[in-house]
Amino acid sequence: MFMGIVLTGDRPTGKLHLGHYAGSLLSRIELQNEHDQYVMIADLQAMTDSNSDLIKNNILEVMKDYISVGLDPNKTTFLLQSAIPELTELTFHYMNLVTLGRLERNPTVKNEIRQKSYENSLPAGFLCYPVSQAADITAFQADLVPVGNDQIPMIEQTNEIVRKFSSSHGSGAIKEVKAILSKTQRLIGIDGQAKASKSLGNAIILSDSSEEIKRKVFDMYTDPNHIHVKDPGEVEGNVVFEYLDAFYGDKEHLEELKIHYKKGGLGDFALKKLLNQVLQDLIAPIREKRESLNDLDMKDILWKGTQKARVVASNTLSKVRKAIGIDFFNL
Amino acid sequence: MFMGIVLTGDRPTGKLHLGHYAGSLLSRIELQNEHDQYVMIADLQAMTDSNSDLIKNNILEVMKDYISVGLDPNKTTFLLQSAIPELTELTFHYMNLVTLGRLERNPTVKNEIRQKSYENSLPAGFLCYPVSQAADITAFQADLVPVGNDQIPMIEQTNEIVRKFSSSHGSGAIKEVKAILSKTQRLIGIDGQAKASKSLGNAIILSDSSEEIKRKVFDMYTDPNHIHVKDPGEVEGNVVFEYLDAFYGDKEHLEELKIHYKKGGLGDFALKKLLNQVLQDLIAPIREKRESLNDLDMKDILWKGTQKARVVASNTLSKVRKAIGIDFFNL
Repeated sequence: MFMGIVLTGDRPTGKLHLGHYAGSLLSRIELQNEHDQYVMIADLQAMTDSNSDLIKNNILEVMKDYISVGLDPNKTTFLLQSAIPELTELTFHYMNLVTLGRLERNPTVKNEIRQKSYENSLPAGFLCYPVSQAADITAFQADLVPVGNDQIPMIEQTNEIVRKFSSSHGSGAIKEVKAILSKTQRLIGIDGQAKASKSLGNAIILSDSSEEIKRKVFDMYTDPNHIHVKDPGEVEGNVVFEYLDAFYGDKEHLEELKIHYKKGGLGDFALKKLLNQVLQDLIAPIREKRESLNDLDMKDILWKGTQKARVVASNTLSKVRKAIGIDFFNL
Repeated sequence: MFMGIVLTGDRPTGKLHLGHYAGSLLSRIELQNEHDQYVMIADLQAMTDSNSDLIKNNILEVMKDYISVGLDPNKTTFLLQSAIPELTELTFHYMNLVTLGRLERNPTVKNEIRQKSYENSLPAGFLCYPVSQAADITAFQADLVPVGNDQIPMIEQTNEIVRKFSSSHGSGAIKEVKAILSKTQRLIGIDGQAKASKSLGNAIILSDSSEEIKRKVFDMYTDPNHIHVKDPGEVEGNVVFEYLDAFYGDKEHLEELKIHYKKGGLGDFALKKLLNQVLQDLIAPIREKRESLNDLDMKDILWKGTQKARVVASNTLSKVRKAIGIDFFNL
């Protein structure tokens, strides 16, 4: 079996939610058994568009989320981006390998620029964050990066930089990476919006209390035309069914429920009661584990992982400096 | 008397020439007596548009030029940009403080982009080099930067970044800088072109042999209509007079020569003979000093200065990290 290096991570701008659980955490729990996995808390990347207090306050929260869902510090290396300055130097060097036009054409960034209404005041750091991502990915010599569909252009950008580097300075220092496409679709918000997100307040947080989960489930957007229990209802776009699809283990029963709902005679209340039970059962052990974790231990795990990761990044940087001819004192 | 910190430097892309001598080296020899002067060999900046072999081969040549003209390692701190990685991290953080539009409007960079025909393939690193300069200037807490007229926009760019930093993250970590405008005009090339430059091959190099100097002086562009000694000649744009203006100490005699030349009756040969003598007298002791210098000593001076400068840059970076809130492990 191919045993490779995997890099993945999150911007620490809030606690993680069910969207992260379904979209990336579950697969990381598998990946850590098969590969050498690095999980990066991307605080520098978050700095390109977020407030530093928010970021600082969420670093250990995200660590707790990781450990409480079952990521294992003996199998996964956790690292804090800002504590590895080698990543910023790599970014600096890679900036000579990418044109402004190429950065401006990056579809992911273009889309984000529109969302943030940055058109007239685009921070240079934001435009260049794909270069910083290329630095992160290559620094740890990653073979694989798990991504959603919308992140594929970032992997392409990285590989272009690697190829430009190799053609300009020779190969061997850094290598191209493969995307692992996420199996699950992006989880929608409880309000039916396309994306569950901390900032939109439409996500079920992994550390929500039992009462918060219940409230959010019973607030969920269903079919607005399904008014009486006897009415036929829509399954498509119905948040309760989307969440059952993602988290309910009994797929056979779920198919029956869908048929029943479409025909009429199945009420939202009964469905939400089921989903509530499913999510309570899923999150209870995560919450319990989370409550047993303390800040000092989390900081220690992150510190140790960061030190280990820094050695790798530093080694890559040395190779890069040598290759591009910046090694006057042989540092 | 105000005793401040001065930062200045050169891209190590060739040996220094008389243009550097008149335009910056002479004033640095004065500045080192009055201020705390840092002279940076800007190899990272040179990497944005030059070949690394060329750069590496010229670092010690430039050091020899510095020492041979009278810069004193006891008064001036010499440093190699690439050996201070803190400068790249500062650049990274400052990228969030400057918009793409602002970088694209920088007149110095705009001009260089045109000269290099970069319009359609502008490397991001080249567009962002003013941010890197801001990092250099602020890292050493410089009060003063000697510049030519064409470099004033770079100082403005730096001060804008400092002000943006202060308004976003509070003041105290970094400070604004003042430009010291160069007293001498830019020295023209021996071919009459606007700029004496290593790459154009129209400069008298500080380490040229006596024969090379003589050859270059006698090759100098004068007044093409001044054919016979008796003809009246043009002083304006006449390279020999421009160089006499810059390097001949006897200003009274020079005025007489100009009047004589304009009237007619003064030949180019006599003038060039005089200029040759002036330049031989100027460069002979520099060349002699240069021949007594060896690579190991130069490397040692540069290493020691770089270590001293790195402490200062590292201290600034700590303050910057604290101010922007990137200090999770208190590194």
